[in-house]
Amino acid sequence: MTERPRGFDKKRISLVSTGGTIEKTYDAHSGVLANRESILDLMLASLELRGVDIERVSLLNKDSLEMSVEDHERIARTVRERAAVSDGVVVVHGTDRLSVSGERCAELMPDPRVPVVFTGAMRPYELRASDALQNLTEALLAVQLCAPGVYVAMHNVVLRFPGVVKDLELGTFVRREVAEALRA
Amino acid sequence: MTERPRGFDKKRISLVSTGGTIEKTYDAHSGVLANRESILDLMLASLELRGVDIERVSLLNKDSLEMSVEDHERIARTVRERAAVSDGVVVVHGTDRLSVSGERCAELMPDPRVPVVFTGAMRPYELRASDALQNLTEALLAVQLCAPGVYVAMHNVVLRFPGVVKDLELGTFVRREVAEALRA
Amino acid sequence: MTERPRGFDKKRISLVSTGGTIEKTYDAHSGVLANRESILDLMLASLELRGVDIERVSLLNKDSLEMSVEDHERIARTVRERAAVSDGVVVVHGTDRLSVSGERCAELMPDPRVPVVFTGAMRPYELRASDALQNLTEALLAVQLCAPGVYVAMHNVVLRFPGVVKDLELGTFVRREVAEALRA
Amino acid sequence: MTERPRGFDKKRISLVSTGGTIEKTYDAHSGVLANRESILDLMLASLELRGVDIERVSLLNKDSLEMSVEDHERIARTVRERAAVSDGVVVVHGTDRLSVSGERCAELMPDPRVPVVFTGAMRPYELRASDALQNLTEALLAVQLCAPGVYVAMHNVVLRFPGVVKDLELGTFVRREVAEALRA
Repeated sequence: MTERPRGFDKKRISLVSTGGTIEKTYDAHSGVLANRESILDLMLASLELRGVDIERVSLLNKDSLEMSVEDHERIARTVRERAAVSDGVVVVHGTDRLSVSGERCAELMPDPRVPVVFTGAMRPYELRASDALQNLTEALLAVQLCAPGVYVAMHNVVLRFPGVVKDLELGTFVRREVAEALRA
Repeated sequence: MTERPRGFDKKRISLVSTGGTIEKTYDAHSGVLANRESILDLMLASLELRGVDIERVSLLNKDSLEMSVEDHERIARTVRERAAVSDGVVVVHGTDRLSVSGERCAELMPDPRVPVVFTGAMRPYELRASDALQNLTEALLAVQLCAPGVYVAMHNVVLRFPGVVKDLELGTFVRREVAEALRA
Repeated sequence: MTERPRGFDKKRISLVSTGGTIEKTYDAHSGVLANRESILDLMLASLELRGVDIERVSLLNKDSLEMSVEDHERIARTVRERAAVSDGVVVVHGTDRLSVSGERCAELMPDPRVPVVFTGAMRPYELRASDALQNLTEALLAVQLCAPGVYVAMHNVVLRFPGVVKDLELGTFVRREVAEALRA
Repeated sequence: MTERPRGFDKKRISLVSTGGTIEKTYDAHSGVLANRESILDLMLASLELRGVDIERVSLLNKDSLEMSVEDHERIARTVRERAAVSDGVVVVHGTDRLSVSGERCAELMPDPRVPVVFTGAMRPYELRASDALQNLTEALLAVQLCAPGVYVAMHNVVLRFPGVVKDLELGTFVRREVAEALRA
């Protein structure tokens, strides 16, 4: 009815899920971890989120090592659509090919309207010692604080695309020149 | 020896602890939760922190309801000292009087060199369902992303002092005008 | 219809809850732990219980330090009623006065039909480092394995009433002669 | 020096570890769960064990699907040795071939001196929702309460060898006639 007080407006964030380690669940029969169902809702329920209103977009649910060129394209196009109608976009993605989707987003949106923040995990949420909640927490804050652009937020670091790669040895994302210097 | 590659430099962050709910531990004998020892180290060890190098400053260890005017002054002066020699300052503080220390910091440093981010928790880390790790994660990211200023980061929201209060009914921090509008 | 195969029959266990530390929950407003609601259901749901069919009897929900003589009597009489119609009884009880109820049960039922097993916790289930699940797990196994009698199961020990006391210094239950020898 | 009071004597239990799901750990590089190191010590440290003094015997560390006839024989012979010098033996074992080792133990020791209790887990300890601690808790209690014999303790049930099988569909152990009746 009346105007809501200033400072009380939550940001409308699209949360695009594509699968990856963060959502892997354990199959007691086969003894392996597989991408079978979304556990993002469980993670979101365990956080106290007063800054964002989240709209869930369940796009894919696969290990990023199995993603095709078409999958990356579809992710980037979905992100562009959501960026047009949200205050920000968070993308949950397998880390192995996260930078492929991130680079494609940065190409497709050289000058995005809003922040786009990719995140993922090295260890599934289902594990006691998982980085999943930390990374999701960071992405949901970075999407409010960063200038428009395409980023990855993980392990207490926010990096902007293009030029970001996963360093397998460090087990995290770094700028390409850092990865090259480390291996030189 | 040689120059480190760009993008690999961590921010030097001072982490000033003053006690509060976030660090409360359970005494099985008396059956109450008390501020007895720092459990911040345990929380820090459970996070993967690649963006910051943390220097711990254990200043106080008390429930903020028991803080005197002198305590708030001491906190603000310590923060000012650390802001002079760090890339940012995070202050762990009881939520009940957090805004008193925050306002005093903002007065003392109207134009700080670096970001100063207060945080705390409504539920101790020792509880399974605690907001402590979320809030600490957010403070340790906000201190890298925000412009110089004095803030509180908690529950997926970052607010800048002056003009921030704890709303007891909501159980979180809001801008003063929001709290007043809610109670009007 | 047809006879169920031998070995597949679950024991019918009455689970009498009376409150105590095991069920304490944290009130973020007051900052204290209080017996406010039963969290036994949550604990039971986290266990895989294939040996027992549990019938819940929510009798009291109070800190045992606040129990009156009438409360202990009511507990003992309820246990006797349940022992008459179950294959075993588990009683969740505050540890401070657990032995008062245990002794009263042993008096009232010098020769019980089935095993009666008391349990409790020194640290509430809500804490990350709680003994609650361990103790409940033990009570729900001991009630299947022990001979008819009144017991407390906790901390990897099962002791039979009468003659069991809580040793405040050890933070667990021991036979009375052990407690006396320790303090002699 | 002087005699210890009666009731204060802990049972000397041999804990023989052979690997299995219970000890699986996650490799962030390969994204799979593997038997790489013992996490039994971590589990034991999280329990309050006042009834037993544990002597660890790290015999094997493999998925039981990979166990050879020689492995089962070696396990059974080790258990027999430990049974001769302990008040009880607990064996941590992969569930897939647990009953092979259990049956061999029962053959080798038709009339054992002390209780021998096998246990394992359907979901590794590293998972938030694991049955590992429940099962270990049960084995460490059953070994004190059961008559001499060879058993499996898991999921709130204790069953005596011979004649126990893992039912893949139920995901737990049952008596052979129960499994056959279910599949008939």
